[in-house]
Amino acid sequence: MALTIGVDVGGTKVAAGVVDDRGNILEKVRRPTPSTNPKETADTIAEVVDLLKGKFEDVSAVGLGCAGFVDETRSVVMFAPNLAWRNEPIKAIVEGLVGLPVVVENDANATAWGEARYGAGRGHDFMVLVALGTGIGGGLVIDGELYRGRFGVGAEYGHYRVVPDGRRCGCGNRGCWEQYASGNALVYEARELARVSPAMAGRLLELGGGKPEGINGPQVTEAAREGDAAALECFRTIAQWTGQGLADLTAVLDPGCFVIGGGLSDAGDLLLEPVRQAFANALTGRGHRPLPEIKIAELGSAAGIVGAADLART
Amino acid sequence: MALTIGVDVGGTKVAAGVVDDRGNILEKVRRPTPSTNPKETADTIAEVVDLLKGKFEDVSAVGLGCAGFVDETRSVVMFAPNLAWRNEPIKAIVEGLVGLPVVVENDANATAWGEARYGAGRGHDFMVLVALGTGIGGGLVIDGELYRGRFGVGAEYGHYRVVPDGRRCGCGNRGCWEQYASGNALVYEARELARVSPAMAGRLLELGGGKPEGINGPQVTEAAREGDAAALECFRTIAQWTGQGLADLTAVLDPGCFVIGGGLSDAGDLLLEPVRQAFANALTGRGHRPLPEIKIAELGSAAGIVGAADLART
Amino acid sequence: MALTIGVDVGGTKVAAGVVDDRGNILEKVRRPTPSTNPKETADTIAEVVDLLKGKFEDVSAVGLGCAGFVDETRSVVMFAPNLAWRNEPIKAIVEGLVGLPVVVENDANATAWGEARYGAGRGHDFMVLVALGTGIGGGLVIDGELYRGRFGVGAEYGHYRVVPDGRRCGCGNRGCWEQYASGNALVYEARELARVSPAMAGRLLELGGGKPEGINGPQVTEAAREGDAAALECFRTIAQWTGQGLADLTAVLDPGCFVIGGGLSDAGDLLLEPVRQAFANALTGRGHRPLPEIKIAELGSAAGIVGAADLART
Amino acid sequence: MALTIGVDVGGTKVAAGVVDDRGNILEKVRRPTPSTNPKETADTIAEVVDLLKGKFEDVSAVGLGCAGFVDETRSVVMFAPNLAWRNEPIKAIVEGLVGLPVVVENDANATAWGEARYGAGRGHDFMVLVALGTGIGGGLVIDGELYRGRFGVGAEYGHYRVVPDGRRCGCGNRGCWEQYASGNALVYEARELARVSPAMAGRLLELGGGKPEGINGPQVTEAAREGDAAALECFRTIAQWTGQGLADLTAVLDPGCFVIGGGLSDAGDLLLEPVRQAFANALTGRGHRPLPEIKIAELGSAAGIVGAADLART
Repeated sequence: MALTIGVDVGGTKVAAGVVDDRGNILEKVRRPTPSTNPKETADTIAEVVDLLKGKFEDVSAVGLGCAGFVDETRSVVMFAPNLAWRNEPIKAIVEGLVGLPVVVENDANATAWGEARYGAGRGHDFMVLVALGTGIGGGLVIDGELYRGRFGVGAEYGHYRVVPDGRRCGCGNRGCWEQYASGNALVYEARELARVSPAMAGRLLELGGGKPEGINGPQVTEAAREGDAAALECFRTIAQWTGQGLADLTAVLDPGCFVIGGGLSDAGDLLLEPVRQAFANALTGRGHRPLPEIKIAELGSAAGIVGAADLART
Repeated sequence: MALTIGVDVGGTKVAAGVVDDRGNILEKVRRPTPSTNPKETADTIAEVVDLLKGKFEDVSAVGLGCAGFVDETRSVVMFAPNLAWRNEPIKAIVEGLVGLPVVVENDANATAWGEARYGAGRGHDFMVLVALGTGIGGGLVIDGELYRGRFGVGAEYGHYRVVPDGRRCGCGNRGCWEQYASGNALVYEARELARVSPAMAGRLLELGGGKPEGINGPQVTEAAREGDAAALECFRTIAQWTGQGLADLTAVLDPGCFVIGGGLSDAGDLLLEPVRQAFANALTGRGHRPLPEIKIAELGSAAGIVGAADLART
Repeated sequence: MALTIGVDVGGTKVAAGVVDDRGNILEKVRRPTPSTNPKETADTIAEVVDLLKGKFEDVSAVGLGCAGFVDETRSVVMFAPNLAWRNEPIKAIVEGLVGLPVVVENDANATAWGEARYGAGRGHDFMVLVALGTGIGGGLVIDGELYRGRFGVGAEYGHYRVVPDGRRCGCGNRGCWEQYASGNALVYEARELARVSPAMAGRLLELGGGKPEGINGPQVTEAAREGDAAALECFRTIAQWTGQGLADLTAVLDPGCFVIGGGLSDAGDLLLEPVRQAFANALTGRGHRPLPEIKIAELGSAAGIVGAADLART
Repeated sequence: MALTIGVDVGGTKVAAGVVDDRGNILEKVRRPTPSTNPKETADTIAEVVDLLKGKFEDVSAVGLGCAGFVDETRSVVMFAPNLAWRNEPIKAIVEGLVGLPVVVENDANATAWGEARYGAGRGHDFMVLVALGTGIGGGLVIDGELYRGRFGVGAEYGHYRVVPDGRRCGCGNRGCWEQYASGNALVYEARELARVSPAMAGRLLELGGGKPEGINGPQVTEAAREGDAAALECFRTIAQWTGQGLADLTAVLDPGCFVIGGGLSDAGDLLLEPVRQAFANALTGRGHRPLPEIKIAELGSAAGIVGAADLART
């Protein structure tokens, strides 16, 4: 049985696991990311790999899912907004440290691959992953293979523009999709509502400790589950932007399946139903074309580890 | 030498040609499209094929580029806005009439393939065609192959939304890209400018016979070439929307090359320079990623015939 | 009985009438405007005044309602978009020609005054006139007196901005209210609809002679009266922008009554009902404040003559 | 010498002063507002009036400037967002408690009157006050008199709509001017910038204690004074919206002078210069009309007391 190790390298934590060829994680380990020091980041990756390698003899390769732009050769992280990496030859560095072949991939791409192979996207050759969290992570599977674009930086859906002169985005532009359809956008809506209509947002404020800026995403979901009108309106707003965005992506990509992941996907049907409705109302050519499925991701935060490990196998 | 016939089936004309394996058109023929009668449309296609077949002995197949949604099996036109086809099994019908194997493709896809193989996209494995005419025709080449999407209707870039509650589009939605960046959009800008600021738009009105609705696209290009300020402003506006759209598509697709075709591309550098600038200002992650080329199409209206013929060969 | 003459001086016609102190027009006369020559414009005004003066002995004064910016002393037309007047001392000129005291007023102000004194605004001390025609003409009555602003150019409602980066306006800006809520805006909507959805706009196209640019305002009203879905949608769109604008003006002015005039007001309830509804949905503080009336103008195109004549009396 | 008392009744404090007929405050007193209990609010007003009355023999009347909708008879507060008053007959109640004639006015109207009589608006018969603080307070002086509208609730400029489907407002609508041009809007811009571009907003974050939500208005002004690029960009954005709004109000009202007050006006020229520039670029008919002055308020937070006291005198 061929085992590989998948490592999810984010701005706050390094999470790794030994994965078998059926997508099962046999053992997991996690460390905080020393994100400001490139050498220490690499050392931490090597540490978790060595630790796992020590427990399983037949580990054959390592896949890294990194939060950043990965170059076309899948060797170098060109830029990572939350890590100190700038043109970091991370494949060579980690291979030198752990003595195993290493494959580097963007973290959302790894997540997409995990869901496509072992999660909600099973059986779909044309799948779009949209991970709604802090921002929007995107991944794309075309014809059964991970799509990387010409230069390795495709599927960054979060940064196509949906509102001219809209909300500022960390990428330096304004009006990016992730400012309107993400976990952060949900929190933004809720806090804005609490700020301008405290009476209406009473339950949200209560959960948030009395202050708009105390409100977080899980609280909005909790209130929405209770049927709170303000929380439900926040979900409707986010779902509207999400559904519109999926319709836009369908005009471009015509996929067979959308998988919605990220922290916001924990809301399940609360999110899914209004997204599907908004999508159906916004799709161009509706009535004259088959519709893609829209599903919630199944592997949760493990998808990145599983996907990275699987990419190392192939 | 293997010859094939390519046929470009539009709402107003059927244009066909015999094409060799180097993308040369050896003979061309053209007929008006009897667009309201499906049977007559098919008969006209058969007529031009027979006519060409009679002149070249070794024609082995026919490719049809059709202005409509083509199904995933490339046999049926599901819907065509400017033809009477609704779920028309056009492959079988034309094969029955002409006695040759027939391949059906969307017309913009055929155009994209023509440019990718023999035109401005030569040498690029990841190419996006954007044809700016009445609307926006889109085509996509990924990894050296034509991308068709899961259901055959991908690359319809013209209908992703760029302005919430924006201009009406013929697809039934509002704010579609093609309402802001196309040959028609240029004319729209020019007429609107002439309507509200006749003094400023004096040259445009002169060319248009004194009336805003008399202004057409080639006139705007002509005035812009003369240096007319109003015409140049119209071009700047269109180029702004075009460049933004290419930046959005790059966030999603990360291509190696954009090829801009369609009637508007006749304006050449007048269009290309401001598009490149708008693109450079709008691209997410600029400074941290390689840039795609942006080029003007080379084959003109022949690209559809050449592409369809080539698709029939493979 | 004191009679005065009111003259409505527009870009295409000079219309004048003898008016008694109950707002009745005893005699009318009309001439085309020689709009490109200031002297001829004044001569035409003098001609119609002399003609009317010759029939009624006791005419005591003349009021001019002019399509332009009138200065604070009500003597000079500072600027007129559709006449050749630039800082034209029209009061002195016409007084010299006709030998009667002359009062100069903006034409929409004169219309507002006519409606306030003898039309739909009777009994209201705080009245806003909104004349929906080519653009939007505005007038304002405060505390029973015509409001002129500090410099004579107030109540130009048509040029407050309702859409950032919106449609071009003849004033040189973008997004002005009159581009969204006027007779011209209705025609714009109808033509746009016919252009992009000819099937849906079949009846409108039929009335317009088969071409989008053939459709005019009365035709849209006619089709809406017949119940045509496309025409009704155009009315809904215009009514939405109109009602929103009235709500905006109410936030600023808190009037007791809106009077809607101009060519578009011929549509009557077809316009009025959706405007009232849009207004009620858009008004800030709704539920906590009394509502103004919203009415259709009663004097039609005579309001300008009656108002100008009455202003000359006081 | 006739003295009157002015009382500024806000959601957090009751501030009162004895004012002479030259607009000088001879003595001031301030109490927290017991805002949730109408009776206690009235008792607090009576308490500060009695205290001041005890020190000056010849006080003849009391003016209340109240943060809410005041009815047309200037007797009743119909609604106050930050007080428990709902149709509160506050004139009668306070007259009963203090034994002096009482005049009730909206607080921003009182402020406008104070500035018009004794502050930056002196000498202007047509003056618009725009107080940029938590929201936008508005007041209007026409022909030397305070404008109240037909129902007493005019000059609520903060709630005309500047962006369709824009930011939520506490009034229940979206896109109100005060969400884009106010002290709160400045803070909103700064926090948004700090959230998405922490590197650029380093100085702002430092002043805010490291967190976006720690940044307040005076800190943004401080950083802008130091020349911090991020803070200056926030000011430019707010000034853009402010100048556009003043241009919109000029189209409607054509005033002779704008006075900008509220907490944001403490920024002085930092705000005033870009506002003037944005106004000049946005005004309709620019070049063909006289321009209003745009000035910073002179009386600061005392304007409300002075204005209310003066209104009680007349």
